[in-house]
Amino acid sequence: MPVLQLDHYDIDISPIGTDHLRWLAAQEFAGIAVLTDDNTAQHCLPLIKEQLAVFQPHYITVPAGEKHKTLETCQHIWEQLFQAGAGRNWCLLNLGGGVIGDMGGFCAGTFKRGMDFIQIPTTLLSQVDASVGGKLGIDFYGVKNSIGLFRDPRAVWADARFFQTLSARELRSGFAEIIKHALIADVQQWQELQQITHLESIDWSEWVARSVSIKQEIVKEDPHEKGIRKALNFGHTIGHAIESYFLETATPLLHGEAIAAGMICEAWLSAKQLGLSKPKLTAITDYFLTIYGHQAIPEGIDELLLSTMRQDKKNEDTRINFSLIPAAGKVAVNQTATEEEIVGSLVYYRALG
Amino acid sequence: MPVLQLDHYDIDISPIGTDHLRWLAAQEFAGIAVLTDDNTAQHCLPLIKEQLAVFQPHYITVPAGEKHKTLETCQHIWEQLFQAGAGRNWCLLNLGGGVIGDMGGFCAGTFKRGMDFIQIPTTLLSQVDASVGGKLGIDFYGVKNSIGLFRDPRAVWADARFFQTLSARELRSGFAEIIKHALIADVQQWQELQQITHLESIDWSEWVARSVSIKQEIVKEDPHEKGIRKALNFGHTIGHAIESYFLETATPLLHGEAIAAGMICEAWLSAKQLGLSKPKLTAITDYFLTIYGHQAIPEGIDELLLSTMRQDKKNEDTRINFSLIPAAGKVAVNQTATEEEIVGSLVYYRALG
Repeated sequence: MPVLQLDHYDIDISPIGTDHLRWLAAQEFAGIAVLTDDNTAQHCLPLIKEQLAVFQPHYITVPAGEKHKTLETCQHIWEQLFQAGAGRNWCLLNLGGGVIGDMGGFCAGTFKRGMDFIQIPTTLLSQVDASVGGKLGIDFYGVKNSIGLFRDPRAVWADARFFQTLSARELRSGFAEIIKHALIADVQQWQELQQITHLESIDWSEWVARSVSIKQEIVKEDPHEKGIRKALNFGHTIGHAIESYFLETATPLLHGEAIAAGMICEAWLSAKQLGLSKPKLTAITDYFLTIYGHQAIPEGIDELLLSTMRQDKKNEDTRINFSLIPAAGKVAVNQTATEEEIVGSLVYYRALG
Repeated sequence: MPVLQLDHYDIDISPIGTDHLRWLAAQEFAGIAVLTDDNTAQHCLPLIKEQLAVFQPHYITVPAGEKHKTLETCQHIWEQLFQAGAGRNWCLLNLGGGVIGDMGGFCAGTFKRGMDFIQIPTTLLSQVDASVGGKLGIDFYGVKNSIGLFRDPRAVWADARFFQTLSARELRSGFAEIIKHALIADVQQWQELQQITHLESIDWSEWVARSVSIKQEIVKEDPHEKGIRKALNFGHTIGHAIESYFLETATPLLHGEAIAAGMICEAWLSAKQLGLSKPKLTAITDYFLTIYGHQAIPEGIDELLLSTMRQDKKNEDTRINFSLIPAAGKVAVNQTATEEEIVGSLVYYRALG
């Protein structure tokens, strides 16, 4: 089973079993706490609870969902750690999707100035995206991940058995990050992906491993996102704004669905600015539409979307920052676009519906 | 004027002037914010406000005092940064004592996953203690500095002119850390210090520089307090508990006053356990009493003090962790003492009154 060895920790992409528990015991942590949300407590924890029992873990459960990725929930987690008598020689196991990993990691990274933590991502999105990179945080002031820090876990355990608990829609959402990694860095993977139009028969562990390898290479070059790491932002400047908009509606999008729309828009900007060829733009557009369909982004919200983009923490000055692709498998960071061009990309997207 | 060059930043021990501002301008931060509390806004900021004007800083003021070193105050600081339009390429200048440095550094270190900050410590205590080491944080769950992180500032500007704004009592409090650094690491400094019985004529900049050098050497060996850095904890296990107790009374102690009492107790433990000689114990006891007088620690609060010590985040297991001195200028970390011995040291202290 694949194990990616990073500088400071390993990502073990395999079913959690005896090896994992033996390694955990060997760390001699003074105590173990396990963070879940309502959903993962019910659907994921049962797969490993019996094996963990030997560590007599202290369980902490928080409400599920991005809207609970707040300082208030952190206070609850910290209080629970105090009540358990946790010290900084304890270890926190974060069992859940991106919210649990980001927030649990932030709480661990700041509890008594930093206790160890292990990420056990349970969604495809979090296995591909959050397994590597050390980005931790919560939402604040209406801005996603705006309070947080960089800190690596002691290990990541990526177990594809948890995907049984995901809907087809959630799996498809996570798949968007796999496509993104291919588009910015590996034309070969991009060619292979285009053959995949149904997700039922995918060997997820293999694709998680291949996709995480790409991200890992990028993050290693630039852990604190001063330069090339921004490559991972492809599709996310516009995609995040679309996601934020739909979050306030009756029909929120999943992250990958919004990012897929964002990647179509930013591929259009790439064609306009960096010479991404028309056939490539068409191929990228068609593939995303095949997998994700078309989102009905209302007319008249462009100014709202732009104002969200202006808040993006990746902006270095007053201009909106993009990572664009001059070709499939290539990326250019620190690109900018005028607000007219951004609106142009939204017009292109709307016309596809 | 002395400049201590550390691995990642400099500590400049001199009046803030043209050199500082030229250096700041050269960093090309996208914006500058200045954090003060009510007191430093009134008494310290005027010394540098005119010079800073060229940067058009955004000013943030919070209420003064340890009781405001909370998550609530952090929320106010983060909100102010958002309202100012700050990005992570801004820099936060923390102008104040330990509370402002610890809390402002924590807010900067977590704002958008980390913006730069400069510490401008305005008290003797914070110049000697907080200038080096990267410990940032706030109080939570009734435990001092229990949420925080390690992160270095971009620079420390230690300007002794700010001491004009301190009372004699506050200066004396800060002086306790200078004595501590000598006692754990530099017998020569300890000999010289014993000649100083009046603090009026001290060359503070010189003593700040010498004392910070000691701390710096220790922290460099062990930035994350896994081992030798705990040396700096001498006097603090019992001292912190005494400080916490008096904080809830009508006559709170300053940090250094509590730590001075703690160092007497822990010198007694050092004699008992590590063979610190009786004459040395007497010399240490007498010097602290000369400078700080005697604190009336009530009978009958020993169990309360012990329960605070059991919460100390430096404990590695259920035992209370001490750093003790086998001789003046020497230190041994990860020492333990039974609760009877700890009570014995309090009995020794009380009998001195």
